[in-house]
Amino acid sequence: MKKIAVVLSGCGFKDGSEITEAVSLLIALNEAGATVSCFAPNIEISATNHMSGKPENEKRNLMNEAARIARGHIQDLAQLHAKDFDAIAFPGGYGAAKNLCNWAEKGAQCEVLPEVKRVITEFYEASKPIGAICIAPVLVAKVLGKHGVTVTIGEDVETAKEIEKTGARHEECPVDDYISDRETKVVTTPAYMYDNARPNEVFKGIFGLAHELVEWA
Amino acid sequence: MKKIAVVLSGCGFKDGSEITEAVSLLIALNEAGATVSCFAPNIEISATNHMSGKPENEKRNLMNEAARIARGHIQDLAQLHAKDFDAIAFPGGYGAAKNLCNWAEKGAQCEVLPEVKRVITEFYEASKPIGAICIAPVLVAKVLGKHGVTVTIGEDVETAKEIEKTGARHEECPVDDYISDRETKVVTTPAYMYDNARPNEVFKGIFGLAHELVEWA
Repeated sequence: MKKIAVVLSGCGFKDGSEITEAVSLLIALNEAGATVSCFAPNIEISATNHMSGKPENEKRNLMNEAARIARGHIQDLAQLHAKDFDAIAFPGGYGAAKNLCNWAEKGAQCEVLPEVKRVITEFYEASKPIGAICIAPVLVAKVLGKHGVTVTIGEDVETAKEIEKTGARHEECPVDDYISDRETKVVTTPAYMYDNARPNEVFKGIFGLAHELVEWA
Repeated sequence: MKKIAVVLSGCGFKDGSEITEAVSLLIALNEAGATVSCFAPNIEISATNHMSGKPENEKRNLMNEAARIARGHIQDLAQLHAKDFDAIAFPGGYGAAKNLCNWAEKGAQCEVLPEVKRVITEFYEASKPIGAICIAPVLVAKVLGKHGVTVTIGEDVETAKEIEKTGARHEECPVDDYISDRETKVVTTPAYMYDNARPNEVFKGIFGLAHELVEWA
């Protein structure tokens, strides 16, 4: 059985992992026959109200919140090492762009959380596949842009332009499909970068990504 | 297009809706061609830490938390009326047993939240199908037990016995299947009542339930 690490960034698309994307990934990886382990950085984040979109004036622990998605089975990202897994995958949500890095604020000039940069680099250097969903491909672009990685975030022209500033290439992709870069072993799908996508369309794109990851692992 | 109402009880299996169940339901209902609207009671709940399982000593608004699953598109349960929908469905999680009623504490002697009792009764009286997942069938048993409804919560003997005290009948069911009661139009599937189930098994049972609901709607 292939062992896949999934890196969560919280629980809820406005301040953490997009929940439908994360669950779709867990379902699809299991359906593809993989064993899945969830990881998250053990840091405090600011909560956002998901009805109003406004800050809650409340701190939450990212790992505790991510445990809601993972039914309690979550480990500190510091414990994740490429030697123990066959592939790694990142669901999207604003958490990927503001907890795992500060892309939301700085775009291509962002800093990536050191543990996130470390694991992406480790998997790349071990020639193990990396999956990224929705806005999470910016993490891969920022860390692997110098290697000319190709990713998709759908058809958002501004974000695509910003991604290309990292050295990465951007390719357009519909919500229910995915883009494979065979050279860098990076697989990406746009998911809720299409804000009005239906959950089953998002699932379809992620299902494809998950099967490609497991096949390559 | 059939219109289905989904009633959430928070966000996370220890104090709200089980997330994989809720998302599986949203994916499967959309895949079956339905239009889905999410509802939740506008009440305060006590948060539970999903790593330690212990109380957080923190109150959260159930509707705001459920909005994390529904990407902000959520309405007050008080606004849900059977005349506007073709079917209703309840994901599981402890939220169903301790926020929507107090079954977790009182079993068959529990009280059901008045708005929850009202909507179940409205859909039943309008002969519109009702779906319930995991522990949520206890809500349906408590409200419709006097009509001899048949439900499943898997193979947990103690809970099944307690359910039969309401007048409801219990039928065993594996995780990836569902039970249909054609007379009362109630469809149930055990999902994470099997604690060690894999996400894709849970998805399969809920996929079947969702398609049955939409077909009957």
